[in-house]
Amino acid sequence: MSKSKKYTELSTLGEFGLIHHLTKDIRLKNASTLKGVGDDAAVLDYGGKKLLVSTDMMIQDIHFDLTYTPLKHLGYKAVASNVSDICAMNGTPRQIVVSLALSNHFSVEGTEELYAGIYLACEHYGLDLIGGDTTSSRTGMCISITIIGEAEEEEIVYRNTAKENQLICVSGNLGAAYMGLQLLEREKTVFSGNPEAAQPDFTGYEYILERQLKPEARLDIIQQLREKGIRPTAMIDISDGLASEMLHICKDSGIGCNLYEEKIPIDYQTYKMAEELNMNATVCALSGGEDYELLFTAPLDAYDTLLTSESVSIIGHTCKAGEGCNLITRDGNSFELKAQGWSNFKNEAE
Amino acid sequence: MSKSKKYTELSTLGEFGLIHHLTKDIRLKNASTLKGVGDDAAVLDYGGKKLLVSTDMMIQDIHFDLTYTPLKHLGYKAVASNVSDICAMNGTPRQIVVSLALSNHFSVEGTEELYAGIYLACEHYGLDLIGGDTTSSRTGMCISITIIGEAEEEEIVYRNTAKENQLICVSGNLGAAYMGLQLLEREKTVFSGNPEAAQPDFTGYEYILERQLKPEARLDIIQQLREKGIRPTAMIDISDGLASEMLHICKDSGIGCNLYEEKIPIDYQTYKMAEELNMNATVCALSGGEDYELLFTAPLDAYDTLLTSESVSIIGHTCKAGEGCNLITRDGNSFELKAQGWSNFKNEAE
Repeated sequence: MSKSKKYTELSTLGEFGLIHHLTKDIRLKNASTLKGVGDDAAVLDYGGKKLLVSTDMMIQDIHFDLTYTPLKHLGYKAVASNVSDICAMNGTPRQIVVSLALSNHFSVEGTEELYAGIYLACEHYGLDLIGGDTTSSRTGMCISITIIGEAEEEEIVYRNTAKENQLICVSGNLGAAYMGLQLLEREKTVFSGNPEAAQPDFTGYEYILERQLKPEARLDIIQQLREKGIRPTAMIDISDGLASEMLHICKDSGIGCNLYEEKIPIDYQTYKMAEELNMNATVCALSGGEDYELLFTAPLDAYDTLLTSESVSIIGHTCKAGEGCNLITRDGNSFELKAQGWSNFKNEAE
Repeated sequence: MSKSKKYTELSTLGEFGLIHHLTKDIRLKNASTLKGVGDDAAVLDYGGKKLLVSTDMMIQDIHFDLTYTPLKHLGYKAVASNVSDICAMNGTPRQIVVSLALSNHFSVEGTEELYAGIYLACEHYGLDLIGGDTTSSRTGMCISITIIGEAEEEEIVYRNTAKENQLICVSGNLGAAYMGLQLLEREKTVFSGNPEAAQPDFTGYEYILERQLKPEARLDIIQQLREKGIRPTAMIDISDGLASEMLHICKDSGIGCNLYEEKIPIDYQTYKMAEELNMNATVCALSGGEDYELLFTAPLDAYDTLLTSESVSIIGHTCKAGEGCNLITRDGNSFELKAQGWSNFKNEAE
């Protein structure tokens, strides 16, 4: 290729822009493909129950830092993040295939640790590991997992089916995984500046560390909602921050939303860490990644039932697209919701 | 982890040893999982047709060299190698998910080229691209593809179901992709020693280059065998060389084999290149990788039909396990068949 030709850097499109750019012209050919690119999982029909298929790739020094990530936790997290995508479709996870690229310098014992975490997650979520590929890498580690789940057709919840005047709900609490990451990064910096320093004391921050290092997919929420007879009208899992995911639902469903800052669930340790680092906890909840909580919309008549659910918070309501996507702050001001989530393709200088 | 503890290098186990080591204790939990790790694809039962699932990962500078691999070809090959696994189960490929890690320095135009190859392969093999993940990498490129295919249960051909006294057959010809790789590597070395050198002249070697850069999965062979009413008794695709794959079938089926050197199909260009490089063409066919041809066993009564098939060669027959796995050379000597195939986890010094 000629050197005089101008090339466009990936960072100009961003991850979602790039995916859209590369997949916008796909026309589906097979009758068994019900839904392709564009939701948490694809939906396939092979004559029985509907199949849900999703995939996630984790790259060393982009998604994880082996300086402070135990391999067993890493294996567990790689599976949990995939399970979360099946949950977001209101399905039941069943099988995974695991591909792994490892440096030649990696040890057999290291891969055993990693797989111990993968198998632990398989036990916990009821999954079968059915295949994979193992290869070497000249550089860092790469883990790619594809998950297959199932659901009855009428159970599947997409992200483009929310309607106006519905409740917006979120499971668990937000921003904790991001605060856990900030804490680990701070201690790493301290340690690299002074290798003789005492082991870091994480007392009081165990919860946010666990949220970062060993997150859980909310399969329990899916089951709980089913038991309570509540069927979300749209759902997505929160891997890139509340704002980014909320905007996905609104854009895809053609609606707007009002989120209330005071309703966003944030753990005490998240607040404490944010304060210590001079950060705003709400911003962390809106834009911090890797929470793996579920964001969903539900009919207004589910209000009373949802209100009594310990692990679900009602954080706002949907509205007409023309009213925009807004965050109402504690002092009553309204701001346009913006996705400033974690981006893979930012320039490194940023 | 304590520094005094001894760690085992991955190269001591090799790829297949490592996979066995990590997956030997798997117990399947889900009724929908019919067959997990251990064949070209896993087999799932979701109530309708059986599903076939396989995955492959390709890593820059391990599986491909961007110095001489056009991105469009790379995308095509990444898909074709997955289709080949579904063919090896006697199934029909239907959907793929594609995960991609790219350096920030990669251009949008480069990803377009790569995807053009992926989409071309989707067209050619009748596949839907239904999802994926796109992320950045601090180092090289990583492509991970998971493929889903289908088959009626009675159509599926495993690798552990060959019997004694059956025909051993192979599609197309062998060793060409490996010779193509040797040619490209030679020209790269010449070029790096003298960047002012003229562009390499590949005249007369177009076929082996195409076998390396744009291999095809043998979906046509699957269809041809079906039309002729021949159902292979065991099948595998040749990605690591004939010897390695033949030993997989024999070991898994509990049988032996006699392969006849003179029957192994080798293209004229493969012979010519091998001669030029002072290599033995039979060794290339036995141990060279990436042919993506099909190796299968068939009942003796299929002999006449197979003999008239242009794209299939009968290269030997199966026997009792006690007779071993042997290569009968042109001069009538018998040698034990050994897998010296391409290994990912060899020490780099080798």
